[in-house]
Parts: sequence; C-alpha cells; structure tokens
Amino acid sequence: MGQTNELAHRMAGKTIKFVDASGNPVAGEEIEIKQANHKFLFGCGIFDAIDVANKNVPADRLAFQEAKLDKFLDVFNAATLPFYWGTFEPEKGKPRTKELKAAAQWLKERNIAVKGHPLCWHTLTAPWLLDMNNEEILKAQFARIEREAADFNGLIDMWDVINEVVIMPIFDKCDNGITRISKDLGRIGIIKEMFAKTREYNPDATLLLNDFNTSINYEILIDGCLNAGIQIDAIGIQSHQHQGYWGREKLEEVLKRFSHFGLPIHFTENTLTSGHLMPPEIEDLNDYQLSEWPSTPEFEERQAKEVEEMYSILFKHPLVGAITTWSFSDDGAWLGAPAGFIRKDNSSKPAYEVLKKLIKDDWCTNITSKTDDNGMVAFEGFLGDYDLLCGGKKVSFRLEKNAETEQFVI
Amino acid sequence: MGQTNELAHRMAGKTIKFVDASGNPVAGEEIEIKQANHKFLFGCGIFDAIDVANKNVPADRLAFQEAKLDKFLDVFNAATLPFYWGTFEPEKGKPRTKELKAAAQWLKERNIAVKGHPLCWHTLTAPWLLDMNNEEILKAQFARIEREAADFNGLIDMWDVINEVVIMPIFDKCDNGITRISKDLGRIGIIKEMFAKTREYNPDATLLLNDFNTSINYEILIDGCLNAGIQIDAIGIQSHQHQGYWGREKLEEVLKRFSHFGLPIHFTENTLTSGHLMPPEIEDLNDYQLSEWPSTPEFEERQAKEVEEMYSILFKHPLVGAITTWSFSDDGAWLGAPAGFIRKDNSSKPAYEVLKKLIKDDWCTNITSKTDDNGMVAFEGFLGDYDLLCGGKKVSFRLEKNAETEQFVI
Repeated sequence: MGQTNELAHRMAGKTIKFVDASGNPVAGEEIEIKQANHKFLFGCGIFDAIDVANKNVPADRLAFQEAKLDKFLDVFNAATLPFYWGTFEPEKGKPRTKELKAAAQWLKERNIAVKGHPLCWHTLTAPWLLDMNNEEILKAQFARIEREAADFNGLIDMWDVINEVVIMPIFDKCDNGITRISKDLGRIGIIKEMFAKTREYNPDATLLLNDFNTSINYEILIDGCLNAGIQIDAIGIQSHQHQGYWGREKLEEVLKRFSHFGLPIHFTENTLTSGHLMPPEIEDLNDYQLSEWPSTPEFEERQAKEVEEMYSILFKHPLVGAITTWSFSDDGAWLGAPAGFIRKDNSSKPAYEVLKKLIKDDWCTNITSKTDDNGMVAFEGFLGDYDLLCGGKKVSFRLEKNAETEQFVI
Repeated sequence: MGQTNELAHRMAGKTIKFVDASGNPVAGEEIEIKQANHKFLFGCGIFDAIDVANKNVPADRLAFQEAKLDKFLDVFNAATLPFYWGTFEPEKGKPRTKELKAAAQWLKERNIAVKGHPLCWHTLTAPWLLDMNNEEILKAQFARIEREAADFNGLIDMWDVINEVVIMPIFDKCDNGITRISKDLGRIGIIKEMFAKTREYNPDATLLLNDFNTSINYEILIDGCLNAGIQIDAIGIQSHQHQGYWGREKLEEVLKRFSHFGLPIHFTENTLTSGHLMPPEIEDLNDYQLSEWPSTPEFEERQAKEVEEMYSILFKHPLVGAITTWSFSDDGAWLGAPAGFIRKDNSSKPAYEVLKKLIKDDWCTNITSKTDDNGMVAFEGFLGDYDLLCGGKKVSFRLEKNAETEQFVI
C-alpha cells in the first residue's frame, strides 16, 4: 500500500480485543476482517432502480435491468434518484411517490445511500406552474418540498436541494415557474428559502447546493449563502465532461478554489465518455443531439485512464466525500452519450474494471490475522463498515476516525 | 423640451407665492428662476485639485492647473479625489491628510460634492503592509478607515469603500496585504467589515461598492452583500472603455441587470477616448502602455457622439444618480490615454461642448416669468439648487420631488 500516506485521511487504526465468555483473552485465534462498505460515497445516477423495484417493464427488459443493477451493486454504494418535478408530478396532485419510494427502499435494502435530485430547478420543472402567479408558484414549490422531504424521510436523507442557481434567474431557454420566482427572491433568497423548507421536514438530511458552474460565480454565490447563514452540508459540483476531460490541472484548481470554504465537496454529476468528444463550441450540452454516439475500444481506453486519474485525485482530496458518475450505463445515458461504465448490452468497459479495482481492492481493507498473546488484533483500514469473522461467527462494526479499542466475546 | 416625459423622474413642479411685507400678494412682478446646481452628480476624477489647493507646483504649472479647473467648474458638480493608500501614506504614519483636506475644502467651497476613492483596494495599497502578518494588516486597514472617515467627515461624505472585490482574493499580479486579508475574510466578509468601519466613523456618508466587473459575478456578490445585511448606498460601476464604447445595447443590458436591486447606481469611472482604441486582446488595461496616444479630430467627433449617447441613456435611467468621467483632461490621464474632455493644452474637445450643452442647457432650468394676480409663479424644473431673482433680491431654494408651495416675501 504505497498510497497509505496520501490517503491517511481516508483511514483509521483500530485495536480489537477477543475474549471468551469468562473474559479471558483468546490468543492465537485466526480472524478475518472484511470491509463491507465505504464511508466515502461512490455513486451513480441509477434511475433504472425504478423499473426494477416496481417491476413495471416487460419481463425481458426487467431481466436486463436487473442484470444492470447487479453490476452496479458489485461496485457502488450510493445512488441518485430523479425527482425532476415535471416527471415526478406531470399531472398536478399525482406525484410518483409510490414508485420512487419502492426504488429508494430497494436501494436501501441493498445498503445503497440514496440521494434525491433535485427539489428545486428551473429545467424539467412542472409545466403547470406556468398557469400560476408567482405567489402561487412559491407556495406550490414549498408544498412540493414539504411533501418529498417528509415522505422520503429515512429513505432519502440526502438532497440536491436546489440546482444551477447561478443561471436560474437569467435562464432564457424557456419560460418556467422557477426562473420566475428566482427573479423575485434573488439567488441567495431562493436558496435560503428552499434550504430552510427542506431542513424543516428532514432536519438530519445532508443538503446540497449543486451547480455546473465552477467559475468564481459559484464561489461568490456560496460565500453569499454562508454569510446569509444558510447551512450548506456539501458543495455539489457537476463535472459533465462530454467535451473532454478537465485534466489534473483544472481539477486541482477547482478543488483548491472550492476547498476554501472548508465544507465537504461532492462531485455530483460526473461524465467521462468512451466516445468522440462533443465539439467545444456547444454551450448548452442539451443542444448536442445525435442519433448514434458510439463507444469505441480506443476511447474506452481513454475513458478508463481518465476515470482512474480523476477518481484518484478526488479520493486523495480530504474534503471530497462523494463522486457520482451520472450515467452508470450507456443504456439510457443522458444525451445518448457513451457515458457509462458499461455498454448498452450490459458488458463492462475497461473503466468499470479499473474503478472496481480501485474501490474494491486498492482502497478497500481485507485482512486475515491471528490474535496475539493478549487476544489483541490491531489493524489500519479504510473508513467504513466491516465484517469480522472469527471461529464461524460474524460481527459487524464501523471503522471511524479516532476509533477506540473494541472488545468482542467469542 | 421634447424630453420632458422621459426625464420626468429628474424633475419636479413647484409653486412659489410672492407677498409683500404685509402679506399681500405681489402681482405682475418679473422674476427669474435660475438653476444653480444639479441634484444629479456630474463628476470627474479631479486629482489636480491637490496642486491648486496646496499651490505646491511651480507658478506656470499652477496657472495651467487653475485654468484646467476653471473649465471643470464651468460644467461639473462632483469630483473624485485619490485616497490610494500607497500614495496617500507612502511612509507609514505620514499620511497626506493636510493636502487632501485642502483639496476637498477647495472643491467644497466651489459647491462641488467630493468622493474619496478608495478606502480599501488591493492595487496601489501601502507596500509596507507586506511586512505585517494578516492580523496586523487588518488592524492597520481598520485604523486607516477610521482616520480617513473621521478626518474628512463633513468634507468628504461619499466613499468608494472597497474596490474590485470580485478579483480581490484571486488577484495575482503582485503580492499585497489586501489580497492576503481578503482570502482570510472572504469577499463578503471583507466588504462587511470595511463598510461597518466606514459607517461607524461617518454614519451619514454615502457608501459605495465599486467594480469594473459587470458580469453576474458582481450581481451575485451584491446579492450576497445585501443578504448579509450590508447597507450599500450606491452600486459603483466602472466603465473604462479604452477598447471601444459599450454601445446602447450593452449599456442598457448592464443597467437592467443592476437595476434589479432597486439601489442607486453610480457610474464611477467612465472613460471614452478620443484616440485609437486599445486592442481587444488586452485583458488588464494597465498592460497597455504607449509613449504617445494622440487625440485626433476624427476620434474626437466619435468621442463626442458616444459621450452624448451614453450620458443621455444614463440620465434617462431612474436609478442612476451619478456619472464620473475618470479623466477630465488628457493631461495626466490614466494610461496616457486621450480620455479627457479637454486636450493636453486645456483646449476643449467637442465632447466637452456637447456635455456642457446637455448639463447646462438641455437638462437645466432657467425661467423668466411674471407673478399672476395671486402673486403666484408655478414652474417645472430639473431637481437641484436654484436662485430666485426678483426686484434686485436673490434667494436660494432647493427643488425636490413633492415640493410644497413656498412663500417669499419681497
């Protein structure tokens, strides 16, 4: 483990003492310590969980989706589910709460931390807001947050509360209710209101501000929020790189600027494709629509290298707490881009294998050892959940910073 | 006056009643109403006032400077004086307070509103701050504000409190004490501290935030300040146009975006040259240094047209309260640019004449009338100070919005 020093912030040491029923140390006992989960969140957008949990697609499609999710579950421990207002509640008063609850529950049962995305955004918001005046829109937005934050409390305890506020009041691609109210409230005003409302209905949730803008616009906005007393639990940074990998220099520069606040940083929407690059002149990624955007062997190698470098840089940075790759699979990927870790036929790309090795091997702790004369085993491992196997018994524990010696009776 | 409707916000109506010593109306009396000063601030950077007030230059230079200031006084009613820390207090503990007080006094006596520029800025700050640690720098910056705000209270009641905060913490052209403390405090943090300190020592002053950045960076920063409870009395916008006139479209777009806050807007540093344009690839205007940058007849005509259009647009906008042209004369102009209203030999450029006509004629009220049978005169005029001449007597009054009928005894 040559990386030990660079990753010291991701690790902790722990001493475990094994005693028998009478409290006497058990020496020379073989034990196994296996990391079952990471504290760090390795996530994907995994909207497919809705199909699988609700079984609401034809059998062959369901089998395909299940196979896809199996590959996801093999590597990742976090998922983002869609709460775009326009698709979550296309008809006013008929939200897809039941379906989304089933999906969140399905993921939770498989030990996946779930984030909802987003509670407030101008794009993909409910079109029926346009029939309301601004006072009514704000009221409806509050009611929507109350409902989702309360309904999913315990299932979803992490929310992208509000998305892309830098451009929200000047967004002019199409008229929408959220841009309208953001003009009234101002950027910091609308963030303040939406955070307060979400916090009210899920006080323990991790609440994010999220943006694709990584310029000083976003820095100044965050500075403004913090000075206005808004508690941001994590800074969300989108990094859709359809037009080419940022590279180490830009990535480290962005990290440096956003580290200034001392807050956790989540890379919320990461994309590195295994296809040709989107031309640089495209400003709004949504404007680039192709009938076919193939994944090629050459570009799959490039993607694997980029994934390895980018995840390594982020995992090394002490403030980064999560990386979510936006499209787990090319099947259903945003913009039809070959943005997934797996191909349209569910086969693994090199990036999948590279990342699996990092997450499940290089950054994972699995130890076999023997208790010493005092019945003790000391080890150092990556933070997270562990299974301890000893004499046919299994116990679980969590490895955190500044862990104390624990005693197990065997 | 075809402009009356468009400029209604700059005007007010007033009724004056003339009575004799016994209180009887004086009918048929000829009266003259002459506007003596504008409420709107038409300013220039007029650092030359230091030379003239202190008579600290050779006699021929003094005469030249006095002639220059005469031309300034003929048209303008506001002046900006330099308080760059590095030149105001080049040696720690030896500020040029006396000289600047003389200049401010000289201007005040001539009915010129004076603004100090700036109290806190990374560029041209005191180099000796670099010998201090950050705590000491902040303490010195506070002490400097206390001193200037208190010393000049009553002479200078308008301050550019802090300048160019958008880039302050990322300014990397040269190490300086202010960038250092801005990194500690954050943008909004340093603004908050500097405004509070200035307000403490001159509670009635008009306090400005000032920036050349007119992008949404600055909008978000202002939004942040207001949400943090900072009272900004006017938003300062620099508009150095060495690289070409913004034009109506950009100007109106900037006005629209910054009007959103409902605060007064001051154009604090305007430049429109009468020479060739600076190439567009220059990013920091300070990087463009020429030995000679001539004013030419052709470009003087262009400048005059641009000045006329720009001042007209700004005067028409209800939230704009001041326009300051940064260099009154080409003599001593920033960057050696032909940026003045007058040439190096003190001769007037067409822009000077155009603006004089606007300020002193088109936007100025001078009326001769006769009192009616009830001894009344009603008139509508541009807001500001007036002299009323009647039967060899002169009285002064101020025309403000919602003025009540006033009575004069003649």
